[in-house]
Amino acid sequence: MATCSADLTSLLGANATGAADYICNKFTDASYAVDNTYLLFSAYLVFSMQLGFAMLCAGSVRAKNTMNIMLTNVLDAATGGLFYYLFGFAFAFGKSSNGFIGHSNFSLGSTPSSLFDYSNFLYQWAFAIAAAGITSGSIAERTQFVAYLIYSSFLTGFVYPVVSHWFWSGDGWASAFRTDDFLFGSGVIDFAGSGVVHVVGGVAGLWGALIEGPRIGRFDHTGRSVALRGHSATLVVLGTFMLWFGWYGFNPGSFNKISSIYTSGNYYGQWSAVGRTAVTTTLAGCSAALTTLFGKRILTGHWNVTDVCNGLLGGFAAITSGCSVVEPWAAIICGFVAALVLIGCNKLAEKLKFDDPLEAAQLHGGCGAWGVLFTGLFASQKYVREVYSARPDHYGLFMGGGWRLLGAQVIQILVIVGWVSVTMGSLFYILHKLGLLRISADDEMAGMDLTRHGGLAYVYHDEGETPKQDIQMGKIESYPSLP
Amino acid sequence: MATCSADLTSLLGANATGAADYICNKFTDASYAVDNTYLLFSAYLVFSMQLGFAMLCAGSVRAKNTMNIMLTNVLDAATGGLFYYLFGFAFAFGKSSNGFIGHSNFSLGSTPSSLFDYSNFLYQWAFAIAAAGITSGSIAERTQFVAYLIYSSFLTGFVYPVVSHWFWSGDGWASAFRTDDFLFGSGVIDFAGSGVVHVVGGVAGLWGALIEGPRIGRFDHTGRSVALRGHSATLVVLGTFMLWFGWYGFNPGSFNKISSIYTSGNYYGQWSAVGRTAVTTTLAGCSAALTTLFGKRILTGHWNVTDVCNGLLGGFAAITSGCSVVEPWAAIICGFVAALVLIGCNKLAEKLKFDDPLEAAQLHGGCGAWGVLFTGLFASQKYVREVYSARPDHYGLFMGGGWRLLGAQVIQILVIVGWVSVTMGSLFYILHKLGLLRISADDEMAGMDLTRHGGLAYVYHDEGETPKQDIQMGKIESYPSLP
Amino acid sequence: MATCSADLTSLLGANATGAADYICNKFTDASYAVDNTYLLFSAYLVFSMQLGFAMLCAGSVRAKNTMNIMLTNVLDAATGGLFYYLFGFAFAFGKSSNGFIGHSNFSLGSTPSSLFDYSNFLYQWAFAIAAAGITSGSIAERTQFVAYLIYSSFLTGFVYPVVSHWFWSGDGWASAFRTDDFLFGSGVIDFAGSGVVHVVGGVAGLWGALIEGPRIGRFDHTGRSVALRGHSATLVVLGTFMLWFGWYGFNPGSFNKISSIYTSGNYYGQWSAVGRTAVTTTLAGCSAALTTLFGKRILTGHWNVTDVCNGLLGGFAAITSGCSVVEPWAAIICGFVAALVLIGCNKLAEKLKFDDPLEAAQLHGGCGAWGVLFTGLFASQKYVREVYSARPDHYGLFMGGGWRLLGAQVIQILVIVGWVSVTMGSLFYILHKLGLLRISADDEMAGMDLTRHGGLAYVYHDEGETPKQDIQMGKIESYPSLP
Repeated sequence: MATCSADLTSLLGANATGAADYICNKFTDASYAVDNTYLLFSAYLVFSMQLGFAMLCAGSVRAKNTMNIMLTNVLDAATGGLFYYLFGFAFAFGKSSNGFIGHSNFSLGSTPSSLFDYSNFLYQWAFAIAAAGITSGSIAERTQFVAYLIYSSFLTGFVYPVVSHWFWSGDGWASAFRTDDFLFGSGVIDFAGSGVVHVVGGVAGLWGALIEGPRIGRFDHTGRSVALRGHSATLVVLGTFMLWFGWYGFNPGSFNKISSIYTSGNYYGQWSAVGRTAVTTTLAGCSAALTTLFGKRILTGHWNVTDVCNGLLGGFAAITSGCSVVEPWAAIICGFVAALVLIGCNKLAEKLKFDDPLEAAQLHGGCGAWGVLFTGLFASQKYVREVYSARPDHYGLFMGGGWRLLGAQVIQILVIVGWVSVTMGSLFYILHKLGLLRISADDEMAGMDLTRHGGLAYVYHDEGETPKQDIQMGKIESYPSLP
Repeated sequence: MATCSADLTSLLGANATGAADYICNKFTDASYAVDNTYLLFSAYLVFSMQLGFAMLCAGSVRAKNTMNIMLTNVLDAATGGLFYYLFGFAFAFGKSSNGFIGHSNFSLGSTPSSLFDYSNFLYQWAFAIAAAGITSGSIAERTQFVAYLIYSSFLTGFVYPVVSHWFWSGDGWASAFRTDDFLFGSGVIDFAGSGVVHVVGGVAGLWGALIEGPRIGRFDHTGRSVALRGHSATLVVLGTFMLWFGWYGFNPGSFNKISSIYTSGNYYGQWSAVGRTAVTTTLAGCSAALTTLFGKRILTGHWNVTDVCNGLLGGFAAITSGCSVVEPWAAIICGFVAALVLIGCNKLAEKLKFDDPLEAAQLHGGCGAWGVLFTGLFASQKYVREVYSARPDHYGLFMGGGWRLLGAQVIQILVIVGWVSVTMGSLFYILHKLGLLRISADDEMAGMDLTRHGGLAYVYHDEGETPKQDIQMGKIESYPSLP
Repeated sequence: MATCSADLTSLLGANATGAADYICNKFTDASYAVDNTYLLFSAYLVFSMQLGFAMLCAGSVRAKNTMNIMLTNVLDAATGGLFYYLFGFAFAFGKSSNGFIGHSNFSLGSTPSSLFDYSNFLYQWAFAIAAAGITSGSIAERTQFVAYLIYSSFLTGFVYPVVSHWFWSGDGWASAFRTDDFLFGSGVIDFAGSGVVHVVGGVAGLWGALIEGPRIGRFDHTGRSVALRGHSATLVVLGTFMLWFGWYGFNPGSFNKISSIYTSGNYYGQWSAVGRTAVTTTLAGCSAALTTLFGKRILTGHWNVTDVCNGLLGGFAAITSGCSVVEPWAAIICGFVAALVLIGCNKLAEKLKFDDPLEAAQLHGGCGAWGVLFTGLFASQKYVREVYSARPDHYGLFMGGGWRLLGAQVIQILVIVGWVSVTMGSLFYILHKLGLLRISADDEMAGMDLTRHGGLAYVYHDEGETPKQDIQMGKIESYPSLP
């Protein structure tokens, strides 16, 4: 402070340029501090979604496969950390790059720079592992652990980074941040990744689940669908709330900076857009949850909390694309339709005897794809101009913005489906042909925890360490509550 | 930066007014960025309390009603989201307004403005659903789901917003932010809502639980109290810690801005008051937890973790009113008394055969009311002047501030009890008379999950999908640990 | 804003000193706001680790001791809150002080000041209770509750604060922030506390577990090790992810300020170092997790998620010392070795018939000590100069920085082991001699929840409140999933 004053005093009197530099530099410093605070804490929130996935997945599988699925969730984060550090971040955002892939900044070699700081890496890593987390749900309860290690590394280290390069890097061929006129002069608007994250994860899961086939017992000998209920609705709700919490990092955090101004000295700046994004996210989830509640009540006759949780998440997956560029009222429509899309996809999956224990392909793939289209329909001119200033003229069809953005969004879905099918579909198929993909029927019956992971997840009755007569299990188990 | 420099250079030489505007605007921008970061992340923390409520409630009810109670917690957030967006926020904070209710800014029609940004809406929404979460605990395990949907919407959409308008809006008739001399020239100090949130939720729960009557078996045929223990202490502790975590958004976040200065260039500004609020919150909870630990040890002979959790939460509910205007040592007293209040209320409830499965009426109603009074006793002059500068002269009775603030605080309790009794009490009574409130005795015995929500929350033993002899349940259940 | 402009206008024209003061003051204000936001939210994250510990501990013990261990975790936070407020913070950071202990600022009497704000207290309190949480794992399932209350208070209120004074206070005799030339002219670099927190907690646990002896049944009559498996792997994973999440407060938060500049106007400032610290933390955990996965696969033949969780946490405990001053690639080495250290310590513990239910002594003590050494080997010159500018010349041995830092690090380990052994070791021994330390064999067999804490943690089958024939347990338990 004393130094600041002394320096500035002399400058103000004699050296306007120096004074201006001095002051402006300090404003720049303040922006860096605020923006990094915002981005780092957002990254921590996105990371907490991994906890959400772990609990959601655990609760949605049978008790005998709990250790297995949780291990995959822990390892998504761990392998993802190393591979995304070594090359994933370079493929996605490295400069120099071409439209297809980045090829510099391996192992964070040129970080920090004026382009990217460590906070950017951390934030993007948390996204990459979320994509892997989605896929692990689709192929739960029947996949060999080694196969999982292979596909998870391939997905976080290569397949996903390339897609994120296309749509999010300024160099990406389909990015709306790109300043030339490619892709209908519009480029794709996929703000936080309904396409880049959710459709990628969902389509990968689709191929995995399809190639593996349904779990034993999922469809009975007459072909009728038999629900293989998850072992804990409590974990499902816990996971869902954690994902909701984390989504406040995922969507509003995707601005990367919060201190950018629209008009200096005005209450309306990027901080307001960040807040609006949190609101659209919330409303889409809420409307999807309520639609699912009543929709499933009509279809099944009861009020089902796990269905509501899935509907809620479907609403979030859908709004993730357009969250920053649509009005709150539009977000309610987005969630409403997302819930219907999920119900429809689930009906279809049942009809086609497709078994995805987490409904991940339907939820992230189906609702994610709807979200990509939704942006093409409802993106508002005002917000597109603020958030995607390189492409100010193409916005939602229903908002009077013409067909170009919608066209680009359709292209995004097709391209992602194609790319992920070619890469991940082939990978799953090869693993399948090599006999590395699915566990044996015996192991599936006994459960993976017992056969591969050293024992069951739960031990509610002590055993082995003390004589039975001392513990008197039965008595303890039914011990009456004390007054 | 380059632009900033060039602009400022020319201004500094020739145009002092322009330069000053330029610089001041940029400071304003920085404040908006910081304040919104602080408020948004605080809102996310408050939202995480909904996860805390869900786990606390789930753990505190019997296993057979777990799906039901968790669904109500998810839906508090979801219905709350839509209704608070459509009209709740308008009723609470809309300008124009009168002393009783706001009547503008429906559907965020005039947001953002210089008064409110999206972050304010999100923050207040998270408060509204917390109030509904409190009430759901009181009437757990015996309330029809449709009744729940009705009361939850009414509470978040109307009853709660009106109360928050009275005490928190600058226009509210009892607000300490109001600049005229209403209510003893003092107005009510209820910083983060011991009254506005906790007493409202608690009194609503009181009427609900009273009108429904106790759960079957809660008092035996001789009238003796029988504990119906919750099914998982682990979930209770998980929920309690999440609520503690979230309370750091609830109380310190209630400043809405962190960058406000008291004296420019000094370490003591609003950021310090925010930190002090986090400390008083912590200390009140700690002291309440320890008081409960030893108090219950004396009364029951054992060290009970779920009691300690409830005591802790009682301390938080109490300090919520005065957290920003009392000294840390006073917060310790606040928590100490709160624990005694809770123990007393629970004794009384037992005597009156009042059954509240979560002790929510006692905890949030009783301790909340104590907290409102506590502020009237211990609010310090210095802090009141900083935080409630419109009403600098009335502070805690024990701190030499006279009786006026205490009088206003008493009025607050009476008015809230009256308003919530008239609105929510009537609603519960009407639902009761229409036969919509309580489930049938048969359903209550069987549990709500089985009869209304499609099955039990837990499936630890697989069934139906594979021949029994293959799984050999018993064997798996007692599988010895591998070396 | 209007005032700002008017004031500044007149100053700029006539009064350069006044203008400079004005502007600089406002920059100072902005820094305080940003730094406190960053530090407070970091503190909240560190606090959330207490939830992580509670769940990790609960899942790692047998069901019959769940209430007990969770109560200790809640009380670590609560007693810690009061004692750290009353004197812990004064012992650790109070000015005036000497090299050994602080002796002012009791009960926050001189807070806020230019040295410490409330946010600093909150942040340091969250650290203190983490140390206590570590120890509670080592002595789980067999320690009298009163003994726990005594040691936990002593640890958080005195033993730990003194250690943190030595290494973290500017006055501490071994601190690298100290400007004179003590301790090889280098001082100790223990940025976020591999030594101060983890070795302290681990060594305390070591003595506790050693003096109490192993749990009944942990080694059979032939001396063979018998795994007493924890009752829920789900809780272990939940706790681990929460700890990971909270570690982003623990390590990157330890800068205390995020807005400090290295060169004004440049993207590279302390915010970047904060981000780098988050990245090194992440990478160390990831590499430790993967090393453990494959290491244990080779040793035991299965893929074990709880082992991977422990390995991960070992990586975090190790990187905590050097996280701010090492390169990301070095963090990967740190985690790799940490995993091996943990495996080795566990082998050794088994051989020596040392029983620590949470592996806390091995994990926090062993990996923590490795982390302290690691810093002496890999601390980079550039980062040491930025973060520890008082001691710019001594950095990692392998980075060409000579042996002095490494020497200081070795001293740190020896001194901590000595101090904690003398204080906590004596305390445990006295409690043992007084018969206050370990519960009776009968109580241990029956479990502590039943004998001391009012009942078991889980009640999955309702009992007592309704006639058995109505509930028809069996039927409910095996109720088939609804279609």
